Amino acid sequence: MNKQNLTIGGKELRSRFFLGTGRYPNPFVQNEAIRASDAEILTFAIRRVNLEAPGEDAILQHLEEERNFTYLPNTSGAKTAEEAVRIARLARASGLSDWIKVEISANEKTLLPDPIETLKATETLVSEGFTVLPYTSDDPVLCKRLEEAGAAAVMPGGSPIGTGLGILNPYNLGLIIEEANVPIIVDAGLGSAMDVTQAMELGADGVLMNTPVARAKNPVKMAEAMKLAIEAGRLSYEAGRIPKKKYATASSGLPSFISN
Amino acid sequence: MNKQNLTIGGKELRSRFFLGTGRYPNPFVQNEAIRASDAEILTFAIRRVNLEAPGEDAILQHLEEERNFTYLPNTSGAKTAEEAVRIARLARASGLSDWIKVEISANEKTLLPDPIETLKATETLVSEGFTVLPYTSDDPVLCKRLEEAGAAAVMPGGSPIGTGLGILNPYNLGLIIEEANVPIIVDAGLGSAMDVTQAMELGADGVLMNTPVARAKNPVKMAEAMKLAIEAGRLSYEAGRIPKKKYATASSGLPSFISN
Amino acid sequence: MNKQNLTIGGKELRSRFFLGTGRYPNPFVQNEAIRASDAEILTFAIRRVNLEAPGEDAILQHLEEERNFTYLPNTSGAKTAEEAVRIARLARASGLSDWIKVEISANEKTLLPDPIETLKATETLVSEGFTVLPYTSDDPVLCKRLEEAGAAAVMPGGSPIGTGLGILNPYNLGLIIEEANVPIIVDAGLGSAMDVTQAMELGADGVLMNTPVARAKNPVKMAEAMKLAIEAGRLSYEAGRIPKKKYATASSGLPSFISN
Amino acid sequence: MNKQNLTIGGKELRSRFFLGTGRYPNPFVQNEAIRASDAEILTFAIRRVNLEAPGEDAILQHLEEERNFTYLPNTSGAKTAEEAVRIARLARASGLSDWIKVEISANEKTLLPDPIETLKATETLVSEGFTVLPYTSDDPVLCKRLEEAGAAAVMPGGSPIGTGLGILNPYNLGLIIEEANVPIIVDAGLGSAMDVTQAMELGADGVLMNTPVARAKNPVKMAEAMKLAIEAGRLSYEAGRIPKKKYATASSGLPSFISN
Repeated sequence: MNKQNLTIGGKELRSRFFLGTGRYPNPFVQNEAIRASDAEILTFAIRRVNLEAPGEDAILQHLEEERNFTYLPNTSGAKTAEEAVRIARLARASGLSDWIKVEISANEKTLLPDPIETLKATETLVSEGFTVLPYTSDDPVLCKRLEEAGAAAVMPGGSPIGTGLGILNPYNLGLIIEEANVPIIVDAGLGSAMDVTQAMELGADGVLMNTPVARAKNPVKMAEAMKLAIEAGRLSYEAGRIPKKKYATASSGLPSFISN
Repeated sequence: MNKQNLTIGGKELRSRFFLGTGRYPNPFVQNEAIRASDAEILTFAIRRVNLEAPGEDAILQHLEEERNFTYLPNTSGAKTAEEAVRIARLARASGLSDWIKVEISANEKTLLPDPIETLKATETLVSEGFTVLPYTSDDPVLCKRLEEAGAAAVMPGGSPIGTGLGILNPYNLGLIIEEANVPIIVDAGLGSAMDVTQAMELGADGVLMNTPVARAKNPVKMAEAMKLAIEAGRLSYEAGRIPKKKYATASSGLPSFISN
Repeated sequence: MNKQNLTIGGKELRSRFFLGTGRYPNPFVQNEAIRASDAEILTFAIRRVNLEAPGEDAILQHLEEERNFTYLPNTSGAKTAEEAVRIARLARASGLSDWIKVEISANEKTLLPDPIETLKATETLVSEGFTVLPYTSDDPVLCKRLEEAGAAAVMPGGSPIGTGLGILNPYNLGLIIEEANVPIIVDAGLGSAMDVTQAMELGADGVLMNTPVARAKNPVKMAEAMKLAIEAGRLSYEAGRIPKKKYATASSGLPSFISN
Repeated sequence: MNKQNLTIGGKELRSRFFLGTGRYPNPFVQNEAIRASDAEILTFAIRRVNLEAPGEDAILQHLEEERNFTYLPNTSGAKTAEEAVRIARLARASGLSDWIKVEISANEKTLLPDPIETLKATETLVSEGFTVLPYTSDDPVLCKRLEEAGAAAVMPGGSPIGTGLGILNPYNLGLIIEEANVPIIVDAGLGSAMDVTQAMELGADGVLMNTPVARAKNPVKMAEAMKLAIEAGRLSYEAGRIPKKKYATASSGLPSFISN
């Protein structure tokens, strides 16, 4: 089976699962969930990490043994482009990564991304040589603008962070994917394996999740479920689903290779 | 990981995928798709099979080598309980199986099951010792009635056969599952891996599909996608998803094992 | 504007609003809401009415002055066809009405109608000369069966009584309407003016409501809202909506009568 | 009944219907539809109007007699803030109106508004004293930004112009309304009376439509349907709908004023 791989910022990835590292009940469960997810890219808030000695950080430490992770630090907590840019520079300076997920929100109730500031920060950070993955709304025009600004991948949200409401507007997500020339990673709001399968069947190149895994009753089992959901959705997308029809077609009629 | 198995009519099944054998482009693809699906239970219309010599039948022949299939013949084409019962008796008499999927429809446009005739046929066939799996609508009261009539499993449709419209009424399906004491297998109308994941996350015990696999652009790849979707949905159901919330929760806050 | 009227059981109705009389905060609000709704048909549970002297009944009394109502008593509380038939006969014997809404449920959690018992009671009551309006599920085959049994109108539920969940399966409702030769009245589960407009745009001939009016914060205002929603949905159905399209069409292009 | 009126730019409006003037089959139908809609605010593309002599314009001429309309010209066709600003200035200079609907799109397939350019144009035109009503996406953060920039009302789209797909993301629209301090007018994509009722029940202050009226099979009847749908939705919003519940509540129980 010919599985095309995903490439972001020149890096070829075998997994399409971007996993967040926050909110797990304890470090052991966190580690087991990461293992079960088979994720290659791990994301976390820079403000959570001790930038003076990232190698000794509580979160990153127990992942150390396995060297094949790509870290995608995010700027969560930033309310303006300026703050996001400062956080990204700190992260790079401390040797953490030159990949950055731009995440800017001034609304504490919804944590929805600010489209104007996100575009500004993306422009600046691209010009400084970062590999930039902005978290944004599902506005198709803005996603295009972020691509034109040099984003390595664009990450529209399905619904507000941590709500588990799934993909509120599959139409918009479909449009975004249809028009994109960079990978589209669905970020934020996914709650269940169904949401993940839906995203992948719409043609998304990957998904980023944290809360739905970390806060599931059984995070490790959920990590495996999500891994399989990504694969199922991707395969289904590649296999080409049947069209929807208004009326029935008997599936038990004579098969065409018999009736012909 | 403790994966509870599904038991129907005293038979323990390791797969939750019930696969139809009609409408594939050719027998080779049919066989490959069955293999990729890992399905244990195969379903087909009795009227399609040569009952005088079922062992030589075009459809069943090339499955012969692999002996671990359970055949679930269906009564499709029947318009009344009487016709369905006669078809089931013929199938058993010819040594095909004493499992029977009751499928009765008088509406050629929608092929929707007739609830009254389906209940009647189920009662009769149960009294004659068949293992009866009726295909029915998603009416919760009727599903309960079929269980009370002795159905080994109840198989509500997601939407009309072959439409690919998915689960039109997840609420009803959830009620049916909540109240059931026998396995609930979602039968008919599923179109994509997302639909399958949704059914399993609602707590369905399995799914029956034919057209969405056989008529996909790539049936073999779709069979694999559906297999994974069933596993993903089941694991997610067991793992316990996060509740839906109206507003956001930051996933990148201090993890509880650090902040405490 | 040519507004085709609705005819049920030989009676021509100018309103398409069937209003329930239970659960209002007090009799004054009940009366005002009935007035605002402009409903002609009022429905109530027979068990609530003093059958020995229906003219002095607390509920019906204050409606007395206005003589143009048609009463549609219902058999709610009945768990079997037998019970429903007995209740209907009592109602007729007491001079209340020979119209009857068959409502039979054995499930106290969902109050969903029992399709088998509903069909039986309908057959019996039709044969006894009642004008029968059965409340049923949205199973298209069963709705057809009830029509064939002589129902004067068929009343599928949108969702369980009192839930306000709206029309859970618009597809099924559309099929039912498409195939019907008697009026289809959507009964149960509607919660808002939007639900009502949707039912009417699908081509329903009327709607029956109680809880969404009686339990609204302002029942009188809601009665008026529902009346307008019925009219809006009906007019829209008659006016013929635009088709849905995937992509945009500018509405501000040169109008055809100028550009041509 | 206390119907609070809508005020925009200091103007009190008795109707909540903003009607577009393009795409009608002929001027007579256009006029009749406008009359049936009872709309006070009419919108049209400035590029369609002869700015040298707007009083003699084919579109505006036959509306002349009735003097109580407010004209809301739009900048459709503009691809940048600069173009939109130029169009607005021309419109004002020609005496047409100092109200302006900012509409900027560079994508001819979807005609979706460009959020960045829309914000820029709004800032400029507000500073020049226009009453600005920007058409934008349903991004809640951007809607807030437009309000902060001085928009007199904000007009998020339900779906792309002319598609009739309705409100693709009711959640976002609800958030926008919840957080707004200026009127929210739902603009673009509405297709049916149901969509309109839904918008109003979510708390929208008004709706702007063109294609669903002008291109209905019967535009005049549809204009009346939409007018009623707006009233129904508004009244329902004010009346306070019942909460949604998972399980049933009998509506035919003893009414509380009897049982107590």
